[in-house]
This record gives sequence, C-alpha cells and structure tokens, in this order.
Amino acid sequence: MTAHVIERTPSAVDQPLLIGTILEAGVRSAPEQEIVYADKMRMTYRQMGERVRRLASALASAGVKPGDTVAVMDWDSHRYLECFFTVPMMGAVLHTINIRLSPEQVLYTINHAQDDVILVNREFLPLLDAIKDRIETVKTFILLDDGEGPESSSIQAHGEYEQLLAAANAEFEFPLLDENTRATTFYTTGTTGLPKGVYFSHRQLVLHTFALRAATSGDGHGRFNQSDIYMPITPMFHVHAWGVPFLATLLGVKQVYPGRYVPEVLLKLLVTERVTFSHCVPTILQMLLASDAVKQVDLSNWKVIIGGSALPKPMAKAALDMGIDVFTGYGMSETGPVLTLSHLQPHMEAWDNERQAEVRSLTGRPVPMVTLRIVDEDLNDLPHDGKSQGEVVVRAPWLTQGYLNDPEQSEDLWRGGWLHTGDIGVITEDGYLKITDRIKDVIKTGGEWVSSLDLEGLVLQHSSVAECAVIGVPDAKWGERPLALVVKKPGAEVTAEEIRELVAGYAEKGVISRYGIPENITFVDSLPRTSVGKLDKKVMRAEHIG
Amino acid sequence: MTAHVIERTPSAVDQPLLIGTILEAGVRSAPEQEIVYADKMRMTYRQMGERVRRLASALASAGVKPGDTVAVMDWDSHRYLECFFTVPMMGAVLHTINIRLSPEQVLYTINHAQDDVILVNREFLPLLDAIKDRIETVKTFILLDDGEGPESSSIQAHGEYEQLLAAANAEFEFPLLDENTRATTFYTTGTTGLPKGVYFSHRQLVLHTFALRAATSGDGHGRFNQSDIYMPITPMFHVHAWGVPFLATLLGVKQVYPGRYVPEVLLKLLVTERVTFSHCVPTILQMLLASDAVKQVDLSNWKVIIGGSALPKPMAKAALDMGIDVFTGYGMSETGPVLTLSHLQPHMEAWDNERQAEVRSLTGRPVPMVTLRIVDEDLNDLPHDGKSQGEVVVRAPWLTQGYLNDPEQSEDLWRGGWLHTGDIGVITEDGYLKITDRIKDVIKTGGEWVSSLDLEGLVLQHSSVAECAVIGVPDAKWGERPLALVVKKPGAEVTAEEIRELVAGYAEKGVISRYGIPENITFVDSLPRTSVGKLDKKVMRAEHIG
Repeated sequence: MTAHVIERTPSAVDQPLLIGTILEAGVRSAPEQEIVYADKMRMTYRQMGERVRRLASALASAGVKPGDTVAVMDWDSHRYLECFFTVPMMGAVLHTINIRLSPEQVLYTINHAQDDVILVNREFLPLLDAIKDRIETVKTFILLDDGEGPESSSIQAHGEYEQLLAAANAEFEFPLLDENTRATTFYTTGTTGLPKGVYFSHRQLVLHTFALRAATSGDGHGRFNQSDIYMPITPMFHVHAWGVPFLATLLGVKQVYPGRYVPEVLLKLLVTERVTFSHCVPTILQMLLASDAVKQVDLSNWKVIIGGSALPKPMAKAALDMGIDVFTGYGMSETGPVLTLSHLQPHMEAWDNERQAEVRSLTGRPVPMVTLRIVDEDLNDLPHDGKSQGEVVVRAPWLTQGYLNDPEQSEDLWRGGWLHTGDIGVITEDGYLKITDRIKDVIKTGGEWVSSLDLEGLVLQHSSVAECAVIGVPDAKWGERPLALVVKKPGAEVTAEEIRELVAGYAEKGVISRYGIPENITFVDSLPRTSVGKLDKKVMRAEHIG
Repeated sequence: MTAHVIERTPSAVDQPLLIGTILEAGVRSAPEQEIVYADKMRMTYRQMGERVRRLASALASAGVKPGDTVAVMDWDSHRYLECFFTVPMMGAVLHTINIRLSPEQVLYTINHAQDDVILVNREFLPLLDAIKDRIETVKTFILLDDGEGPESSSIQAHGEYEQLLAAANAEFEFPLLDENTRATTFYTTGTTGLPKGVYFSHRQLVLHTFALRAATSGDGHGRFNQSDIYMPITPMFHVHAWGVPFLATLLGVKQVYPGRYVPEVLLKLLVTERVTFSHCVPTILQMLLASDAVKQVDLSNWKVIIGGSALPKPMAKAALDMGIDVFTGYGMSETGPVLTLSHLQPHMEAWDNERQAEVRSLTGRPVPMVTLRIVDEDLNDLPHDGKSQGEVVVRAPWLTQGYLNDPEQSEDLWRGGWLHTGDIGVITEDGYLKITDRIKDVIKTGGEWVSSLDLEGLVLQHSSVAECAVIGVPDAKWGERPLALVVKKPGAEVTAEEIRELVAGYAEKGVISRYGIPENITFVDSLPRTSVGKLDKKVMRAEHIG
C-alpha cells in the first residue's frame, strides 16, 4: 500500500498559488495605506489595485498575451511594483533587466529572454539606441517618464505609462493560471561567461513571500510588521529586491520607492517618510554610515537586512552603535533569494553590541521551508560544530529549477538533487551558518578545506601588507597547496618568512588548520580585479599556475 | 501562445509542502522552548523532535505503513501533538476521532475511515469495549495511559505509548511524499444523517498554517507571536484544534495542552503557565467568565479567538471589560477551518469597548489566500454594503476537496466550482463578513432573503415571549413566507397581532424587510431541540409544513 493522494470531486477547485493573492491580501487589509515614489507620486493600496487592472488593460491593448515576456528598465519605482504584480498576473513573464550591465550584456539578456515588450525609463533610451538594431524579438516599447533623459531617441514608444493607464479600462479579468506558470526571469553574471537566466513561478514567489512573512514577523528584534515602513535599497531588478516588495504588499505596510540610489536622497527619504525597514549590500550601508548627512539624522528606528556579501563585524558594530538594527540575510539569484537570516535568539538580545555584532554578522539560520546542509564532495552531512567546512547545498520550494535554456549548467547546479550554492560554510551548534569561502576559491589540502578568505584575513594583519589573495595550486602529495600573493604597502618591508610565521602562530592557536600555512608566498605589485572591483582569482590562477 | 509552465532540469527537486517542514522550523528556531501537558509532563521542542522519530519507529514496528490510517482517541495532550506530525510524516493518515460522538457514531467513523491502528486513552476503553466486535479494520491498539480509566478491558493493547517510545529507535528516515498525500481525516456531523468525512493533504495543512501565520502575527491586537504562550480550548479532534497547534509549532512558542476541559484546571493552567493565546467556543468562554474562580485571576494578557458559533456582542463586551483580547474566527470542518478573523483595523484600537465589541463580534475579514464571496443562487456577486445577504462561497488552497467516499455530497458541496458554506451573510463596506443565518434556515420571500435569526431576535424582544423559532413555509405567490413558532413565558399573554406589530415596527425603521413581517404566528408549548440543544428546524418543518 502506498500513501493516498487526495481525491478531488470534479467540481472542486484547488486554489492555485498565484501572485495576485498577495496583492489581494494587501489591498484587503490596508486599502488606505500609502505607496510612495520618492518625491514624485503617492497612491493608496486601493488605488494600486485599480492601477494594476488598468496596466493590464493597457498591456493587453498593446498586444501582451499569456506567455509573452515583458521587460522593465527602471529605477525603483511604484511602476516597477505594479509590474511585479500585473505582468505575471496576466500569465506573462516579467523580465527585470539589470540596467548596470554593459550594453552588450543587456542586449544578450533581451534576446535570450525573447522579450516582446520593454517598459523603459527615458533615462535608459541611449542604452537602447546603441543596441536597437540587434534587438531580435521586441515589438513594443513603453515609455516611463520622470522628466529626465534625452529629448529624442530612435525608439518609437507605443505610449507613456501614466497616459496609457489613464486611458485604460479600470476592469480586467485576470486568468486562473497554473501555479507553476513562469512569473519572472532575470540574469545573473559571473566574473566571466555569458549571463545565465534564472526563473521563478507564481508558486515559488508566493511561498517565498509567506516563508519570509513567517521568518520576519513577530516580536523579536529586526522584525517586519504591519506598522513598519519599507524602503528597498537593493534594486528591484536584483532578485525582485530580495522579494521584500511582495512581502511588504502582503503585510499592507507603507512602501517607499527611492528611484535612483543617491545617498542624500536615500537619507532624506529615510527621515521624511519615517522608514523603519530596508535591505542593502554592505557597500551601501558603509556609504551611508560614512556620509556627513548621517550625523544629523536619527536612525535608531531603522532595521536593515544586509546581504549580497558578508557583513563585516566592525561594520555591524558601528551600525549597532548608531542604533541601527542590522543583521544578515543570505541567498543568491538562484535561490529566489532568501535562505537564512541572522536574527538574534531571544536570550542574545540583552548582549552588548560587541557580542551581538558577532551573531548578526554570521550568515544566519534557515528560514522556514528551507532545508540547508553542509556536505562533503559525496553529499554526506558534516557535523554542526562551527568548525567542519562543507559546501552549502539547499532545497526549498522556491529555488530556480534550472538556467533558462541551458541544460548543462542546470544539471550542474542541481547535481545529486540539491542546489549547489558554490559557497563553503560551517554551521554552529546553535544552527547559525557562517559562509567561509566560495568553493572555487577554497583550498583542498591534506584532506581538509582551508578557506582562502580566512588565510587572506590573517596575512592582512601584518602591518606591512596592503593586499593579499590566496589561491590553491595543484600539489602531487597534498592535492592543493595555498599560494599567497602579497602586495606590500608603499615603502614597507616584509619577508615571506615573517608572513609564514604569522600564519603559523594562528595555526598553533587552532584558528586555522596546520595545512593552511603557506610555504609559497609571492610578492606582486598589484592584484587583478574584476570590473566591479572583486579580486579576480581566475586571472590569478591563469598567471600563477603553470 | 499560452503561459509558460516552468521547466525543471531532471535533477532538480521542487521541495514539496510537507508537514514535517513546520516541525523542523519550530525545533530549529526554539529548541529549548517548552511543551507542557497539564501537570503531567514537560518537554522541549528538541525532545519532541526526537520523540516524533521514536514514535515513528514504534508505529513502524507495530506495522504502520504509508497509506495506513492511524486513529487517536485522547484528550488534548503532548501525545496528540506528536501524532499530528508523526502519522502524516510517515505517509499515513491521522484520523482524529471525535470522542463526544455516540458509540454508534464512533463505530461508524472507525469503519468508514478504515482505521488500521487506534491510539486510545485508557479512559475511553469502555467506549471501545462496547463496539469492539463490530470494528472491521483495526489490527492494533496502543494504550495512552494517564493513570485513569478502568483496570481491565477486552481490548488487547500492543503496548503503552511512553513505553513504546522509550524502547524505540531515536532515528527514523521519513519519506519524501507527494504534497497532495492525505494527512488527516475526521468527521463532521449534522443534526441528522451519517457523519461525513473531510480530509486534508500535507500541502493544505502547510498552506493553512502559513496563511494563519501571516494573518495572526505582527503588531496589532490579538496577534500571536514568538513570545506568546499557547493553550487550545477547542479539542484537537475538532478540525486539528483549528490548526493552531501547527501554527504554534511553526512559531516555536511555548505550548500547554490541558487534557480534559475542566474549568478550574483550565483557569489554573492559564495562570500558572502564563498562557496568552487560546481559542474556544462561546459556551466555554461564557463558562469561564461566569465561574467564581475567574474573579481571582488576571486575564488581561489573554488573547482568545472565538469560533464555532457567533460571539454575542454582550459577551465580547464583558470579556473586553475584563481585559481579555477577544475576537471572532470563522470557518467550518470543510474549510480546514479558518476563513476569516475579526481583528480590529489599526484605527479602531482606540475605540471604546462598546464600539470594539461590535467589530470583534462580526465574523471577520478573510485571511490571506482566501477568496470569499457572497452570492445569489446563480453565483452572482452581491454588493458589499452591509445589507445585501447572500450565501458565503469560498476558495482557498486548503479546503476539503470532497467528502470521503461520498461523490454525491462532494459535488453538492462544490457545485459551480465554489465551496458552499451553507451560511448566509453580508459584507460591510470595509470588508467584514457578518453571518446572518444558515441558508437552510433563511426564508426566501418576494425575491428577498429574510434571516430567520433576525426575525427570531425581534420576536424575542417582546416581554411575554420565552422562545421563538421562525421557519419558511412554501407559498405559491411569494415563494416562501415566514412562520413564527412562539412559546409564551409562563403566565404571560401575547397575541399574534401584537407580535406582528412589533415586527412591522422594525420593518418601518428598515431593520428588516417588509417581506419579513410574519402573517403566520403559531403558539406552541415548546420547541424541538437537537441532542446538543440547538433548535431543530428539520423537526419543525416536518410538523408544520403540510
């Protein structure tokens, strides 16, 4: 006998998980709540409900059908939020174009996603002008106009967004879709290679939203509740601004969209709109903390999830000292994105900032519905002892089920039935993940994994070292051995032996494995970096591995 | 072109929605949190995680396989909670037996559900003894022993629960199930007819839990957050105690299971365990409010959802005056159960108790993922004006998809693709549902629906009337006409004409439709009632409709 799958009487409708249910819940619970676009526009949830129907009518008039792909090139705006709902609710796919990519990459993603329509902010028309002749599938352009951008362009727009909405029918019957219908797609870029398309269904977005709701609401620190006021500081084209606009809409909270990220504007909106909840990368937080304007404002009601890369503990401490409730979120484009959050446990909330910063800068604990493991190369579980390093592999009901039209990389992502994050981490006894390295950067030596990031951090403690990168070089006996590439500070002196002794000292204290002590140390004038300023270890490997 | 259903690379796993994910989240977030069984047992979430694996090992040793049905006859206990998770996680079906049914009805449900195993509290052995020879499919009985109940029984138990757990393997590999696997089943009884089985899948229970989490957490009144302490006062055999034990486990809150409901014990646990969140029927609340013991306790930190039948406004007011945060929940066995909650909107929280009681005793606003309509007999929507009465029909991702092995009643429940609640209600302009009647009791006259409950309430205002029931009688011209059956108070006098004038007065004020004024008023000595004390209109119709 096997388990019973439930029977359905023929007339029964098993309500599918569609993204419209999120909007419906928000409008129902807080119809008069506000949604704000910088200093340009304010509307209520009730109005947004109507505008979403108008937008659907306008898009349908422009020829958009179920299965079409509708792309958006915009700053964070109320329009973007409306597209987050309207396009998928029509059965079409929303392609959130990363406007920070090069024109050639933007062109590639437009053609690869087979966009039918592009909604484009006038400021980005020059970008489209440059690639227009090579765009293959787009039939219609719709203009998003905030009064900035060039006067003329080779792009012939079907109409302007607000004018189209004003003229459109306020009623629209959204179709009852299969919950596995693709709702969104966007592209992730590595340091080399072509952008890869990830994609998410209605079901996935709904479940991500409800799991986030469970993980972030309630009465601990860093929670996101009905009386909060939300402003994203991670672009909406980047993994749906981490999915938080969907969560904010479900909650029915006031939402503030800041347009282009200008530090003074962000700080002004934080204050004037009384924002209490945001998310950003460490660079943005650092920029805000370092600005002069921040000294005049009170950010003690501000909660911020930090993601994208690790939150350095000193930055966490500095933010805490300013009263900011800062903590880490972890995920990636492929994971929709949220996998973990580093909320404190209740008993930790009484700790001092120094101790709290330690926990808040960890990668975090898995949110509900996420199964997260650290494993060896054969997918065996490793102990949760805060020391054993393994690759982070995950399952959850909202992970991309492949890369768009790329069977080979799709299978590699999901080999063995687990999504491989490519990150190396440890899990502490109380269940916090800490990412220690990227798997491609970790050094496998003597049967152990040594974190290149850990090693770099130790070498950088030497007062004469300006920069350091550690890569693994093949070794017949040990598998790999670490090679430290070191840039000295101008006019400073340091020998390889001094660096080796420094690291050996930490190995004696158990901070790092004995296998991590590098016998190979090479002094270089500079380290190669990618276009976004990250250390480019691919180039280093090409140069230093014979 | 039609909408794209997402492609999955062959190795990708789309994590199914299984009930184990709720337990996993709770254990992960609050491993040291407590679960308490009255004054008998305390354990942590971490321990429950282990006990669930031990119970699965023990049940497997007793022969339980995927597809089997495992029934429970118990008071509210930690064991019941463990069965809520363990049995479905094994791929088996949990049958929560309603121990308040007659022995014949219990027998019917055991045979109809085809129970393979029954876990039975020693106190209920006499009930099983009486029907044992006619039980058809049960192969194994497991004893739940709190030291009460008869010394001997004809039932041969395979073993005692705690002893079996102690001896069982603490490791168990739960299967990866289809999320549409049936997880639970139980029976709903009308005033006549055989009990009907409803059933719920893993997916449905998970989605109900996450939607409740979204609806009940946060920073308004009546919310259920991590620092709350939960005690059910609706039996666990009744629609999984409204699904709140699943929610409590997801949250990782302290849970208190009170055993058999004895008012003094309930009040004592409320105080000693510092319970902050419960749910019960109005009768229980009334019993607690009326007890002497309540005068010595402070219930001002207690939040209570009232369901099962309408919360009378005076009872809401009385509870509010004692500081109890009381509000309505609405649903039924068929709906898993929660459809609406009558939380105040933020601006209402400053209102006085009288005005608040008005809103809190409404049926409530739909929780996320629920689509709720009031419709006429052709399923057309009626206006949300607080006046137009229609049948409440719903869709949600957790409604029973039929009655177990009853195709005819299943189709009737779901006719037209909407689950028919059988309730008549109005929806106010700000979205609160108010149930006004059962559809089988409403009087359809002159193209309008007149609520029998409304009419009864008006007639009861006459100082000489002790009891009143209104039923509809067929009428060639008007479809139906109301017939009021009236019991006079002992020694009091009242004429049909006086009652008619009383109602006519309210019709002039617009309180009730003109069509509601009854020309037929019959004085009777008493009104027939069901075994649970409800007015039995089926009997009245049989007696008074020629």
